[in-house]
Amino acid sequence: MPKISIKGLAMPESPIRKLVPYAEAATKKGRTIYQLNIGQPDIKTPAKALAAVKTNNIEVLSYSHSAGFESYRKKLAAYYKKNDIEISSNDLIITTGGSEALLFAMGTIADADDEIIIPEPFYANYNGFATSSGVTVVPVQSNIEDGFALPPISEFEKLITPKTKAILICNPGNPTGYLYTREEISQLAEIVKKHDLFLVADEVYREFAYDGATHYSIMSVPGLEEHAIMIDSVSKRYSMCGARIGCIASKNKEVMKTAMKFAQARLSPPTFAQIASEAALDTPQEYFDEVIEEYTSRRNTLVKGLEEIDGVIVAKPKGAFYCIAQLPIEDAEDFAKWLLESFHLNNETVMVAPAAGFYSTPGTGLNQVRIAYVLKEEDLKRAVEILKAALKEYRA
Amino acid sequence: MPKISIKGLAMPESPIRKLVPYAEAATKKGRTIYQLNIGQPDIKTPAKALAAVKTNNIEVLSYSHSAGFESYRKKLAAYYKKNDIEISSNDLIITTGGSEALLFAMGTIADADDEIIIPEPFYANYNGFATSSGVTVVPVQSNIEDGFALPPISEFEKLITPKTKAILICNPGNPTGYLYTREEISQLAEIVKKHDLFLVADEVYREFAYDGATHYSIMSVPGLEEHAIMIDSVSKRYSMCGARIGCIASKNKEVMKTAMKFAQARLSPPTFAQIASEAALDTPQEYFDEVIEEYTSRRNTLVKGLEEIDGVIVAKPKGAFYCIAQLPIEDAEDFAKWLLESFHLNNETVMVAPAAGFYSTPGTGLNQVRIAYVLKEEDLKRAVEILKAALKEYRA
Repeated sequence: MPKISIKGLAMPESPIRKLVPYAEAATKKGRTIYQLNIGQPDIKTPAKALAAVKTNNIEVLSYSHSAGFESYRKKLAAYYKKNDIEISSNDLIITTGGSEALLFAMGTIADADDEIIIPEPFYANYNGFATSSGVTVVPVQSNIEDGFALPPISEFEKLITPKTKAILICNPGNPTGYLYTREEISQLAEIVKKHDLFLVADEVYREFAYDGATHYSIMSVPGLEEHAIMIDSVSKRYSMCGARIGCIASKNKEVMKTAMKFAQARLSPPTFAQIASEAALDTPQEYFDEVIEEYTSRRNTLVKGLEEIDGVIVAKPKGAFYCIAQLPIEDAEDFAKWLLESFHLNNETVMVAPAAGFYSTPGTGLNQVRIAYVLKEEDLKRAVEILKAALKEYRA
Repeated sequence: MPKISIKGLAMPESPIRKLVPYAEAATKKGRTIYQLNIGQPDIKTPAKALAAVKTNNIEVLSYSHSAGFESYRKKLAAYYKKNDIEISSNDLIITTGGSEALLFAMGTIADADDEIIIPEPFYANYNGFATSSGVTVVPVQSNIEDGFALPPISEFEKLITPKTKAILICNPGNPTGYLYTREEISQLAEIVKKHDLFLVADEVYREFAYDGATHYSIMSVPGLEEHAIMIDSVSKRYSMCGARIGCIASKNKEVMKTAMKFAQARLSPPTFAQIASEAALDTPQEYFDEVIEEYTSRRNTLVKGLEEIDGVIVAKPKGAFYCIAQLPIEDAEDFAKWLLESFHLNNETVMVAPAAGFYSTPGTGLNQVRIAYVLKEEDLKRAVEILKAALKEYRA
């Protein structure tokens, strides 16, 4: 039998999805599961976006430009301008989700065995894109004790080698919910300039900043034009995860010229989804105001509830819709399976994502879970009650 | 300034799209251009596919399963069964176009510097996917004189090294229009089994077989289950290039398990496009009958017209909707630019794809062009007239 590639064998399985068979078995037993494990919002997609797809008058569903519709790119550039990001429609390429933007970014800046430094815990699929690109992820640890703030710059500098090509951040962070301050972004800008690296920022949760805080983009840092590469997506902003539309943006012309070659090879991003995404840009501010208010309440309810459980430590998120909670147990993966296989409270249980999959350093985060607060407040309250009862029973 | 990767620099520019600026300039001068250079059919997308998208009742556009809708995979398996391809819904993963299926296939079976043998000329983007995967393409030459039939197996065997992982074919062929016979597919099956390689077949033009010929899939070859990987797409079959839906299929469980890890990293294929693709499976046979009839007429008109031009050699295609024509000139790229920049017949000109971009061996195919017969017959007739006049003037 012909052999699978070493790369293919090394590709990580999704840490979020590997509990799915246990959940399916629990559902078959008639259990209700509160899914705190995935970042699929329950928020409705803006009506304008959905309507645009329904009223399209396409007769031949043809390829679009490899960089995406020009009309969409122009409107998107205007959206960025409103967000203090001054880029033109030529500084961005529409991609098939933020996922493809990450793949293009890695291919553009790194060769096999090159290194990219990423503060951990980080979005687990960065491992997948790195493995498929042959790139080595070098983690720098952030800690729950200080809410997953940026590690000291000296910790980054210890890790920089001749193979280091970039620092990659997610801001606001999945899975930490941490929102980097202007000061932290400036520190990162200094270090990448000093060592001639790229700074790649996954900013797909831009709108999800709470308590009056404002997101500060790497694209807004003066003098960082040649270093900054932004990854973006409509998935979370408009609750359009299934569209699969994102973008890669940089003012570095060589970066964009190279990314365009990757874009041409795959021909074009999906047409219907571009129609929806372009229309979504007309979503009124009230939509976001309501969404942010809703997520703020959810976060407050979740964090308050978790903090009231004995032995639970939680890093209060400032953005996105995730938080990492440290539980008074040793093995969160075992606990997560047990929740689905062996526990229920009035036939209900919860599903959480073991956090170890978000760490690259072996043996870290073993007693942590990622919780996505993408459920209604009353469901979150109930989920926390179940978690509390479960922890008591599990530890007994 | 931080550096672009070696891989990024090596990524090929699209040979099909690089003449676009010349075409834009010609359009600005008021010229009408018959576009024979791209494989974008003018055929209408099936009404059922478009209607399904318009009548969707999605409120939250959420991620789908990473392997695609289960309902779609089941219907797709039934479609394959009708085409003598016995696979179950678990033997296939829905991808974002055939493009992504190729990327998953390469990642699954080859590591950096591994080799894949491909009969040339071949679909130019294979180079892009190979470069981005770090894989080396090893071309084996097929020739216009015998219509681009399968090169002798001995020619493949000369090229097999310990780094060879697979043979990749496109059947029916883009850009050659060649349809491999059952005998040729059997020869390929024998050689991959003998040398323990994968056989990857891009079968996206399956339906486009002319003169009563039937497409013979690698998935139908007995005993090839562990070696065969099929790439497919809805783009050409239903004139839905903009959907960006394809699939990768294999009965090799390890291959599918590995491809699934690549699929999970990018989360899911586009939702609207899956809805359209699933509905497209209900397209009645008459649609295809009409399309095949139309393409057969177009092919006949084109080939007849080209053969009547002095010094032109054309390999009559048996499938797909491309042909390679050898012109009585030295440099087809120069000629293609000249057609756009300096020539017109009553203010009309044609755009062709220089074939050199479809060859991997430097210096081959320089006097050939790829012509896609995706235009109405009367337009094809006119395009041939223009080409004839242009060749006369260019050679004068």
